[in-house]
Amino acid sequence: MSSERLLEDFDAGKPAALARVVSIVENHRDGFEKILSTLHPRTGRAKRIGLTGPPGAGKSTITALLAKHFRDEGLTVGVIAVDPTSPFTGGALLGDRVRMENVALDPGVFIRSMATRGSLGGLAAATREVADVLDAFGFDRLLIETVGVGQSELDVARTADSTALILVPESGDSIQTLKAGVMEVADIFVVNKADRPGADRLRNDVELMLGLRKGVSFGNTPAHHGVDLKRMNPARTAREAAAVQNPTTWTPPVLSAVATKQEGIAELVAAFDRHFAYLESSGTLHARRRERMRERVMDVVERKVSDRLWKDSKTLAWLEQQLPSVEAGTSTPFGVANQLLSQSGELVSGEHER
Amino acid sequence: MSSERLLEDFDAGKPAALARVVSIVENHRDGFEKILSTLHPRTGRAKRIGLTGPPGAGKSTITALLAKHFRDEGLTVGVIAVDPTSPFTGGALLGDRVRMENVALDPGVFIRSMATRGSLGGLAAATREVADVLDAFGFDRLLIETVGVGQSELDVARTADSTALILVPESGDSIQTLKAGVMEVADIFVVNKADRPGADRLRNDVELMLGLRKGVSFGNTPAHHGVDLKRMNPARTAREAAAVQNPTTWTPPVLSAVATKQEGIAELVAAFDRHFAYLESSGTLHARRRERMRERVMDVVERKVSDRLWKDSKTLAWLEQQLPSVEAGTSTPFGVANQLLSQSGELVSGEHER
Repeated sequence: MSSERLLEDFDAGKPAALARVVSIVENHRDGFEKILSTLHPRTGRAKRIGLTGPPGAGKSTITALLAKHFRDEGLTVGVIAVDPTSPFTGGALLGDRVRMENVALDPGVFIRSMATRGSLGGLAAATREVADVLDAFGFDRLLIETVGVGQSELDVARTADSTALILVPESGDSIQTLKAGVMEVADIFVVNKADRPGADRLRNDVELMLGLRKGVSFGNTPAHHGVDLKRMNPARTAREAAAVQNPTTWTPPVLSAVATKQEGIAELVAAFDRHFAYLESSGTLHARRRERMRERVMDVVERKVSDRLWKDSKTLAWLEQQLPSVEAGTSTPFGVANQLLSQSGELVSGEHER
Repeated sequence: MSSERLLEDFDAGKPAALARVVSIVENHRDGFEKILSTLHPRTGRAKRIGLTGPPGAGKSTITALLAKHFRDEGLTVGVIAVDPTSPFTGGALLGDRVRMENVALDPGVFIRSMATRGSLGGLAAATREVADVLDAFGFDRLLIETVGVGQSELDVARTADSTALILVPESGDSIQTLKAGVMEVADIFVVNKADRPGADRLRNDVELMLGLRKGVSFGNTPAHHGVDLKRMNPARTAREAAAVQNPTTWTPPVLSAVATKQEGIAELVAAFDRHFAYLESSGTLHARRRERMRERVMDVVERKVSDRLWKDSKTLAWLEQQLPSVEAGTSTPFGVANQLLSQSGELVSGEHER
């Protein structure tokens, strides 16, 4: 099928065309850039909601309940699951499976798993691009579910407009063991399984940390990017430093839920609504979306540079020739890298592609 | 202190100088490239051992026991913990703390936590560089501990010469939920807490998966890189494709351990010894180390490109000017990226730095 025909079917709202376009974009098959460029002007309408937390916190159950809630309001929902333990991606628990299937069979819901995508640093970029496709298709809400453990996964959570961190009493002892930065990415906290022992203590711990965050540790950093810049590598630091500083006075609420009993979902939706209203009125939404555009361009630039360098057979052959001397210690990775770059200006700038 | 003086102290084996050099390298402070280049010829002697697995599998306990075992053999040990839940990085359980402190107080052991390092894709690169520093300092064994959950963390495991995957019966039901690729990275499997119910079943499951791996799924891919190239992004794919194909007939053993009773450690050490002997005799060690050199050069190249682009105020200002039209949909991330690259050839090649 030609890409014109495919995009016609996509425009006509055909689910098969959507699935095909998502696959092309996710796997960077031929023509994905042209497709994304065509769809680009139609993005920006969907509200992007992130759901993160440790394995077993009930993220998928809450995601399914949110999807159902939005459907009941007449809204369409796209789900992007970036979690290898998610029931959406095959790790279904028996009790949850029926509920998931109900959601999955609804034609107003599109579910995409990106669990197995393997690429260093590419997970967040790929999530942004797939989210753009779903946005352009016309979904009203995008739910991006990711496990809050690894660094790449945390970067995925940052791609949303608004993010909820789901915790459970079992994780109470280990809030401090969550990946540094996962607390700061959250706009809303949810204590799930709130009917279990330890829920009150967890809530206290979270509120204590939020107090610390507001009062001391993160006073001067924007809530969405409260990361320790000094500990980051220069490239990333430069990207972060280039980001818009958008101070916020939003105080993240700490909600309770018992997802298995469907309790607390309406309150969570209301909190997202309040947060979106805040994002819009304060100008933070615009700042976050501009930042996302900046990240999109930077992603593409870095990917193109990698492609142009590491798909060029002459460059690879030259690098291969240098490796024995690097191994022998007569040259260093830095020397070879500098030499490689000094002779690759035209390659990187794309002169060779014209 | 001048960097010459610092390196003198480093050469003299002073622990304070080592700690300082590691900090400079880890945080990419001024002069880190010069230091790494100076140390580069002295690397390649240490055996690099990776320990990975899900949270709670007992990785840190086994790491501490391995360190003690090597010390008893008269060897020195460097530990790099890239695990936010590791006792080495502050998440100590009461029962383990004493043992960890015994190890930590031994002057023949150096422990470094990289738990909080935040940088997209930078974790594996940073681990390689810190490992090089410890290698150059003269440690005989490097133990690299990382949680086997996130994508970046999995890439860290790939930086070792030889990697053990630690599993526990509790994770038996969820082998298939481990991050795709984590099974393939393992040279040795350890069923820890082997005295618990479910240990036999876990062992069976692992052996079943290993059978599948040998027989069907991964027959044509090198064990160290049994990843699905088709699902990866083009940049990474190009890097992987450029890697030496080193077929191996090593059959990963499935060992049992009860780390809290110090059982199974001697067997694990023996398995690492056998694996190293195999790596050397088959030429695989040389291939893996050459691949690590290639990755080191590629890391530096990509980091330099990012630095040169995103630390250049003119480039950033130009990018900032383009964002409104990207937001408005009159231009696309791809168009802007191409334009940015076409005007950045000299910047990337480093002409501006001369």
